[in-house]
Amino acid sequence: MNSNFEKYITDYFNRFSDNQVTSAMKYMMDGGKRIRPEIIFSVVKGYGINEEEAYPCALALEMIQTYSLIHDDLPAMDDDDMRRGKPSCHKAYREDVAILAGDALLTHSFGVIAESSYKPEVKARMIAAMSKYAGMSGMIYGQLLDCTEEVEKTRKGLVEIQDNKTGGLFKIACLFAGYIAGINDEESLIRLGSLIGIIFQNQDDLFDATKTSLEQGKSYSKKDQNKFTALSVYSVEELKEEIEKEFKELYSIVNTLKFDVVYLNEILERIKKR
Amino acid sequence: MNSNFEKYITDYFNRFSDNQVTSAMKYMMDGGKRIRPEIIFSVVKGYGINEEEAYPCALALEMIQTYSLIHDDLPAMDDDDMRRGKPSCHKAYREDVAILAGDALLTHSFGVIAESSYKPEVKARMIAAMSKYAGMSGMIYGQLLDCTEEVEKTRKGLVEIQDNKTGGLFKIACLFAGYIAGINDEESLIRLGSLIGIIFQNQDDLFDATKTSLEQGKSYSKKDQNKFTALSVYSVEELKEEIEKEFKELYSIVNTLKFDVVYLNEILERIKKR
Repeated sequence: MNSNFEKYITDYFNRFSDNQVTSAMKYMMDGGKRIRPEIIFSVVKGYGINEEEAYPCALALEMIQTYSLIHDDLPAMDDDDMRRGKPSCHKAYREDVAILAGDALLTHSFGVIAESSYKPEVKARMIAAMSKYAGMSGMIYGQLLDCTEEVEKTRKGLVEIQDNKTGGLFKIACLFAGYIAGINDEESLIRLGSLIGIIFQNQDDLFDATKTSLEQGKSYSKKDQNKFTALSVYSVEELKEEIEKEFKELYSIVNTLKFDVVYLNEILERIKKR
Repeated sequence: MNSNFEKYITDYFNRFSDNQVTSAMKYMMDGGKRIRPEIIFSVVKGYGINEEEAYPCALALEMIQTYSLIHDDLPAMDDDDMRRGKPSCHKAYREDVAILAGDALLTHSFGVIAESSYKPEVKARMIAAMSKYAGMSGMIYGQLLDCTEEVEKTRKGLVEIQDNKTGGLFKIACLFAGYIAGINDEESLIRLGSLIGIIFQNQDDLFDATKTSLEQGKSYSKKDQNKFTALSVYSVEELKEEIEKEFKELYSIVNTLKFDVVYLNEILERIKKR
């Protein structure tokens, strides 16, 4: 656990007075694995920049991730009772409070960046990227494809869901790191984020098939039996091979981005072996 | 109807490809009275600035207003079947699609400002204000007070709800206008927005008591009978007097802000007489 970043998160949320919504926000922010923040930190450190410089945008991204979990778990969505090893937000609080807590995390995530000490031009680029890839060019679009099955159930359709639903926030992570480091190769950053997301999701689907819900700290959604996952179009062995291929492409992109990959490799290894 | 602004809204939403969520977003954006945008336009015009300069931030604010209606109407919230003279979003679409459409409007509202041609410093100030007063220092906090009854049912409690729940977005409207016009008196702008919101909400409560739902184009919420409104603490006559007093304070603030109030007066008269 990164105790400095955890303290930064706690300090931020202390600005809010105590009520049911702020309590629900803090409850769900607590206990996350912070993988997206760690991706940002690993890339900025690879450019010789102190990870603290990335704390504001990393907090914003973790807030977006947390809001999406709260709303995804709602009865009208995936209807999940457990999340991050404890009752999901609408189970621990009321459903209306959970909706508002998600809305508040999303609303304030943009404020965290706007009020940070990044240069105004950097803030604007970050907010534009976060809006785009957490929205209809990313996470929400992917969630829609997932919910409404407006996608063909093929390997191509799977990549479209993963690239948007999971890849969206990892693209933001890589772009944020790039903006802080002054990297202009947005295309490579976006592709890097996309691949991390796809690998992450493929591994998640693999774990779902091989681990119990207790080991994962989440419940199987009530709608899980009908879910379109990687294992709908790959066998377990094929999926493992696919993940290996994706790692190879990922490392080739890492090589074109001229930074010290030692920190990113650590996180990728952690993702690979979790 | 302001056909130039309506065209601006339509043009913006044409960027999104057709799917259930974008369709639900457009469905609910359609038919709004655009009162908050018109407040922005009236103040910038009072400073001799063309209203078109305010279109990006006015669109963003109208998107926030629309997302809040979609989420407020959900079964777990106010459970309203009608909105803007037609079935509410989760009635016309699925509940999961309505949740996502609200999330998407909120997410992209910040992007509209970030991608606009305002100066980066102005963008950052606008986004910070929108986050604050649409969030836990404004609309969402007021919604929480309303939902969870974490407020005393007195005239003071009523003002606290109104100042946050309705006043939040009107504060943003006045601040946006001020930022475009380069006004530094934030305190007066915020008080102006607060008063417009309080008057607006008091008049709404008055209308609810005197007009049919057909005339208002919305249904009475299933939870309406228990709602804490202005008429819980004022008689109809007392409330009319209170609104007159609030208009007087509003005009005194308008006088301290040195701009031509002719356009703002037009909107205030329209609000007064609707």
